[in-house]
Amino acid sequence: MTQMKVTAEPGVPQILTTREVEAPAELVYRAFTQPELLVQWLGPRRLTMTIDRFDVRDGGTWRYIHADEDGNEYGFHGVFHVEPSPQGIVQTFEFEGYPGHVQLDTATFEEVDGATVVHLNSVFQSVEDRDGMLQSGMETGLNEGFEQLDELLAKPVASD
Amino acid sequence: MTQMKVTAEPGVPQILTTREVEAPAELVYRAFTQPELLVQWLGPRRLTMTIDRFDVRDGGTWRYIHADEDGNEYGFHGVFHVEPSPQGIVQTFEFEGYPGHVQLDTATFEEVDGATVVHLNSVFQSVEDRDGMLQSGMETGLNEGFEQLDELLAKPVASD
Repeated sequence: MTQMKVTAEPGVPQILTTREVEAPAELVYRAFTQPELLVQWLGPRRLTMTIDRFDVRDGGTWRYIHADEDGNEYGFHGVFHVEPSPQGIVQTFEFEGYPGHVQLDTATFEEVDGATVVHLNSVFQSVEDRDGMLQSGMETGLNEGFEQLDELLAKPVASD
Repeated sequence: MTQMKVTAEPGVPQILTTREVEAPAELVYRAFTQPELLVQWLGPRRLTMTIDRFDVRDGGTWRYIHADEDGNEYGFHGVFHVEPSPQGIVQTFEFEGYPGHVQLDTATFEEVDGATVVHLNSVFQSVEDRDGMLQSGMETGLNEGFEQLDELLAKPVASD
């Protein structure tokens, strides 16, 4: 039930991802929005995450860096839109290594019997941008990220 | 050659619009970004536009209101992404009458023999949101707006 599913239809500048997480929506939302939790799980295992800014409100901006063991850094930034809540998070997303390209991401949290189905919806300016994201290893990174989220949520401290 | 073309493929949360304007790209860009010019043309003829804020820079926010003769007001706001230039403008767009829904708009200006083909690319969080925009009278509003832009650009003062 925790298998991640990624859908990217031909000709559609959109990626839809669903992944079940064994925790209530409120807790999953906290893991998505509290910097000290987010850095413990988001992204591939081989990268270390540092948050530069993370202002979780309508109009607030965020920026983080993923770094590998060789010191290579990958910066990302965007703007939260709409007031973030356990019902959903809307934000723009830019990879600083591919400037001038913007995607619009919506995360929603559907609680079912105490577990949460996370729905990620990314729309892109073009199918080419969408395909570039798919080819960047996005799916592996997301998958490893969700595994790390499972591990984080299984720790007693995370559910305080 | 100035006929507007709107493309909305079934199942794709995107609207592509092209419209030729008889002016160089630099001048069209000014009409899109200078508030005192923008209020003279954007939107349907029956509505009057007032700009609340319009901070044309990467990360800058904008907000305007369209009002009809009966005093009904329609507010819109968003955030510029990427540094705006005569090559293009990227911005998010929210209609305040339909809160929680965000679209990502890209305008590019392709100069051909002294005229400019304006390309508008709007991507939506869902096909339902896209269809809602189409049904709102968007095409009529855009078409009348471009006609008002033609009129503005034909005035000697606009090309100073």
